[in-house]
Amino acid sequence: MDRPGGSVRILGLDPGLQHTGWGLVESAGSRLRHLADGVVSTKADLPLADRLCIIHRALTELIELHRPDEAAVEHTYVNKNPGAALKLGQARGVVLLAPAMLGVVVAEYQAMEIKRAVVGTGHADKVQVQDMVRRLLPGAMIRRADAADALAIAICHANHRSTRNALARAYQTGGYQSA
Amino acid sequence: MDRPGGSVRILGLDPGLQHTGWGLVESAGSRLRHLADGVVSTKADLPLADRLCIIHRALTELIELHRPDEAAVEHTYVNKNPGAALKLGQARGVVLLAPAMLGVVVAEYQAMEIKRAVVGTGHADKVQVQDMVRRLLPGAMIRRADAADALAIAICHANHRSTRNALARAYQTGGYQSA
Repeated sequence: MDRPGGSVRILGLDPGLQHTGWGLVESAGSRLRHLADGVVSTKADLPLADRLCIIHRALTELIELHRPDEAAVEHTYVNKNPGAALKLGQARGVVLLAPAMLGVVVAEYQAMEIKRAVVGTGHADKVQVQDMVRRLLPGAMIRRADAADALAIAICHANHRSTRNALARAYQTGGYQSA
Repeated sequence: MDRPGGSVRILGLDPGLQHTGWGLVESAGSRLRHLADGVVSTKADLPLADRLCIIHRALTELIELHRPDEAAVEHTYVNKNPGAALKLGQARGVVLLAPAMLGVVVAEYQAMEIKRAVVGTGHADKVQVQDMVRRLLPGAMIRRADAADALAIAICHANHRSTRNALARAYQTGGYQSA
């Protein structure tokens, strides 16, 4: 999946019916570069189907424009409220669909994994994660919290895949031995 | 939205990640005709994004084939389990999206309204609803419960819109007076 030069474009997605954050990073080895980010917002007074259409169209357009190689979404933690879970699920289904329809594989990560990848501990709070995203991607003007959250997911995926690749290379050259 | 002869094609949809039922009826005044029904099933061992893709593609194809004028979905009752609500929400989002993307308006009905429209009481059980669907659409071989549920939703929408149209006509001819 890597581009010439070993780089890969990763799209992080943070689904929500009201605000869906997205962030695109380029990862080459341990280097990370911010490419773009944004938020797709829909008005609460629109019919649900129209809101889902807006989210789907916007994501499809940005995937066609930026051509990410891989995508990643948070493996949603469901809270106590089933009504909110249903609402979030509807947005999440449409968000997962957009890359999959264009042949882009979508990875899922637990919130703890994302925090650990970005801050170093699985118990970081949202503000710490967003601050660290801004430090890891210097020069990027990340205005919206939802976009920062999406970039955190993309960074988590970048870390996981570079660890995976390093392990695979080590196996091939005999650097690691399986038991 | 009515076709020549005053008929309208209504697509009922009963979303589920494992089984999404669909049923198409033609409604002309108080007459109802079964056109088609079916179930879109996805295997639990496939990645979530792939399952959502399968549901979305299948619904898009059947909408392009059968060209319904309007669609209807149950306004999902969310139970105590937020995990199940999230899962159902993901399928529901993708199911609502398919007609909306093709310009077909999607109406939503409460479970009680659907039962009342089909059986005559909001407290009917699932089996009673499915039996009544088979009686209301004689000659149709409705094998699957999910398809019968989807047809119940389509029948509910047909009843509501014919009541609405009758009221609108009565207003126009002065048969009804607003207070």
